[in-house]
Amino acid sequence: MSRKITIIGTGLIGGSAALVLREAGFADFVMGVDNNAAHTAQALELGIIDAAVTLDKGVAMADLIIVAIPVDAAVALLPELLNKVTKQVVVDMCSTKGQLLDVVKDHPARGRYVATHPMWGTEYSGPQAAMANAFKEKAVIFCDEKGSDAEALQTVQQMYTVMQMHQVYMDAAAHDVHTAYISHISHITSFALANTVLEKEKEDSAIFELASAGFESTVRLAKSNPAMWVPIFKQNRENVLDVLNEHISQLRKFKSCLEKENYEYLQELIENANKIKRIIK
Amino acid sequence: MSRKITIIGTGLIGGSAALVLREAGFADFVMGVDNNAAHTAQALELGIIDAAVTLDKGVAMADLIIVAIPVDAAVALLPELLNKVTKQVVVDMCSTKGQLLDVVKDHPARGRYVATHPMWGTEYSGPQAAMANAFKEKAVIFCDEKGSDAEALQTVQQMYTVMQMHQVYMDAAAHDVHTAYISHISHITSFALANTVLEKEKEDSAIFELASAGFESTVRLAKSNPAMWVPIFKQNRENVLDVLNEHISQLRKFKSCLEKENYEYLQELIENANKIKRIIK
Repeated sequence: MSRKITIIGTGLIGGSAALVLREAGFADFVMGVDNNAAHTAQALELGIIDAAVTLDKGVAMADLIIVAIPVDAAVALLPELLNKVTKQVVVDMCSTKGQLLDVVKDHPARGRYVATHPMWGTEYSGPQAAMANAFKEKAVIFCDEKGSDAEALQTVQQMYTVMQMHQVYMDAAAHDVHTAYISHISHITSFALANTVLEKEKEDSAIFELASAGFESTVRLAKSNPAMWVPIFKQNRENVLDVLNEHISQLRKFKSCLEKENYEYLQELIENANKIKRIIK
Repeated sequence: MSRKITIIGTGLIGGSAALVLREAGFADFVMGVDNNAAHTAQALELGIIDAAVTLDKGVAMADLIIVAIPVDAAVALLPELLNKVTKQVVVDMCSTKGQLLDVVKDHPARGRYVATHPMWGTEYSGPQAAMANAFKEKAVIFCDEKGSDAEALQTVQQMYTVMQMHQVYMDAAAHDVHTAYISHISHITSFALANTVLEKEKEDSAIFELASAGFESTVRLAKSNPAMWVPIFKQNRENVLDVLNEHISQLRKFKSCLEKENYEYLQELIENANKIKRIIK
């Protein structure tokens, strides 16, 4: 069965979802809603959406509505969106879940909403960053799925099956803790590393000439868009602070080894870090 | 002209150099010297070396000797090696340069030695990690090249031309400062991030299921071999400490933004980090 879908937010995530779902035959008509007119124009031009529409039109005409905007905007929009839906299914793809679920927990149309977080992204943003081979073989987290109508949940499960993502279920609190460890801290580390090098290496040309694949790999997330990341850090503040404190204390162990020339302990710290091999192939 | 070369250290770097130089026709006979008999056996089996030899044989029979062992071992070996050479060229591929150059600065055969650092590597080690498409299009740093005989330098320049690396020249002190920024700190960050996540996420399965490409990219260097990295951090201790202090202070700015809920400054920090875009494509 094909569907009409509306993407709210036609950037990297929404745009990629549109491309994947159209190609898989899951959606046969894709509408786009975006505050940024340049984004809808680009999304039209790139064939990501068939039509740029207003929020009201997009809601009225869709079977499935995908919310892929910064999480602070999503928290503001979601109750309003649920006011408008009748039989449509609403799914969000935001990176934090606690406040989103909290803001609609008593909403009469809560059942139409399915809270998810597909664990895919790149450091780029906007419609031009959208990719037709996105999401594949990564995890998608469903949160508090018992609050969703069975049929709405099923539609979204089918959608992620089509997107070839493996489905994981947890409550919003667990989600926000895990993503602080597994995604949010990586971004802070990378932003801070970029600032360190930009501060220390006043000559851009030296970085440019010498940068190795290792440096590029640890620093690439530092290109990520603040419009997306500030709201994530804001909403997941406590968990992120907790992990960030641990990370700083781990770095201080390295610092202390070097200061005290304790190379045996340095060896142990690195051997312990090597255990990540058993998890990340 | 083809050459007989001897690789001292048949791991990732030495093994990859052997594969590349043989394939390019730069070397027609490759000998391998390694303290670890399992490594020479693997290197023979994988066709990386034609013969496993003793150090004395490897030196006597080679035109060009490549030193690709942990930098502390290289510091110990290099003067001994230069005692043995007559007309051979010796080049090292180690990641720090200050102490290596210092230990041979008054050696009568100093001219036969060319100090280089090809800015390529992976997080894997040993002969099985060696790759025939290594090094290409990355930078190689030559240090204190004026101390090398013109003809020895020329041979090594030809070698790196064949390896398709672009050549950069600087003194050992500048090298050790730049690499602290551009390579060594990335490794510490990654080791510390792995330790953070391993400490915080007691359930391996959660990391394994949820880890996104972003996490993998920031943490992959944490798989790197301590036998290589402890000596690098030891030899480049002061520079690494300097950059590590800066990095911790950059992380504390993020921490302070979150603690004080100063999201405007957080936005600025991320915008500043985004400037890395102008350097890393």
